[in-house]
Amino acid sequence: MKIAVLGTGVVGRTLAERLARLGHEVRIGTRDVAATLARTAPDGMGNPPYAQWARQHPDVALGTFAEATADAELVVNATHGQASIAALTAAGAQHLAGKVLLDTANPLDFSQGFPPRLFVADTDSLGEQIQAAFPELRVVKALNTLTAELMVDPKAVGAGEHSVFVAGNDGEAKATVTALLESFGHTDVIDLGDISGARGTEMLLPIWLRLMGTLDTPMFQFRIVR
Amino acid sequence: MKIAVLGTGVVGRTLAERLARLGHEVRIGTRDVAATLARTAPDGMGNPPYAQWARQHPDVALGTFAEATADAELVVNATHGQASIAALTAAGAQHLAGKVLLDTANPLDFSQGFPPRLFVADTDSLGEQIQAAFPELRVVKALNTLTAELMVDPKAVGAGEHSVFVAGNDGEAKATVTALLESFGHTDVIDLGDISGARGTEMLLPIWLRLMGTLDTPMFQFRIVR
Repeated sequence: MKIAVLGTGVVGRTLAERLARLGHEVRIGTRDVAATLARTAPDGMGNPPYAQWARQHPDVALGTFAEATADAELVVNATHGQASIAALTAAGAQHLAGKVLLDTANPLDFSQGFPPRLFVADTDSLGEQIQAAFPELRVVKALNTLTAELMVDPKAVGAGEHSVFVAGNDGEAKATVTALLESFGHTDVIDLGDISGARGTEMLLPIWLRLMGTLDTPMFQFRIVR
Repeated sequence: MKIAVLGTGVVGRTLAERLARLGHEVRIGTRDVAATLARTAPDGMGNPPYAQWARQHPDVALGTFAEATADAELVVNATHGQASIAALTAAGAQHLAGKVLLDTANPLDFSQGFPPRLFVADTDSLGEQIQAAFPELRVVKALNTLTAELMVDPKAVGAGEHSVFVAGNDGEAKATVTALLESFGHTDVIDLGDISGARGTEMLLPIWLRLMGTLDTPMFQFRIVR
């Protein structure tokens, strides 16, 4: 499948690498290709600059948001939550219409330090905001409740015996995303119903952030025991 | 231990019954004893009126909020979130000072129907509001993330292999509550730090409510796999 991954951070890189390894044709989208390639310093988390990562991953192409999405069959939103609408706007509604969006972003606002605040909660969600801004996009909220490494390698904790969620208005789109998650190794994909189910998964972030501090690692996952 | 359970609903009754069975001296607190005993109709969830339940549980006493808390060593808040501050105010700050409060309530507002909205989220929590209103109370947020039956019978799903949380400013109070949870059969009690950790557990409610609909049962539980 031709897949666009919007966002050059850890989530975008991790998903792109795994998707390429699974045989998909992957293009990462960024706001400004020249600026992305010009960076030479590690990011705030100590990750190498994009150009260095790109040299190690020649099977993953890079383009503008519009170039990446133009002929993609599926789009992954791996941008920061505050940048997501702008990134999708830059991609262009005409390049998004009718396509499935796997939305991994969270509505986190780091402007007041750590822990970040949610810029939308309970009565709305980032997933719904994206769906409302791009009505022809088939938004599926998924993978926003676990660290990047576990998104693509579920067996790295608890033998993979944990749960991920999908929420969206389009059943076929959810089936496509569910199949993709299963190709990563996820075995318990729970359908939370329409896109307003994103409220619940985005509001997992505050306890996720607390747990990361308490457990001193992001390598943990929610399991819905029933 | 002498334990006051504030609230005559399912959560209060379930906890009171289990605590009494464990040998504690339990008194349920209510706003108006005569009114509580006068009800003859089942509640909105089909639970029998309190008087009927009380006849089957002669080992659980009933009193006003103040009577229940006056000589209690530990207090359990099992009132609705919107009624919690009023219930504790009626109990009287002098009866609460220095005591441990196991706060099971959630900040749910059902005034606009189902699903309920959170009346506080992300930047504050009901647990913190209670702690702020009663500074001498040692508030421990716990058990607000699972259905009443599982609070006291964890093995009823997944052989009890799931997680509960405590959050509070007083380490000794958290140890007391943790021991109580372990006496119920909980084996994975995660300390989320100070009372602001209640934000994360209270914000689990939206996904909890969604899952109850999706799974068509409240008999499920979160496990933190790590």
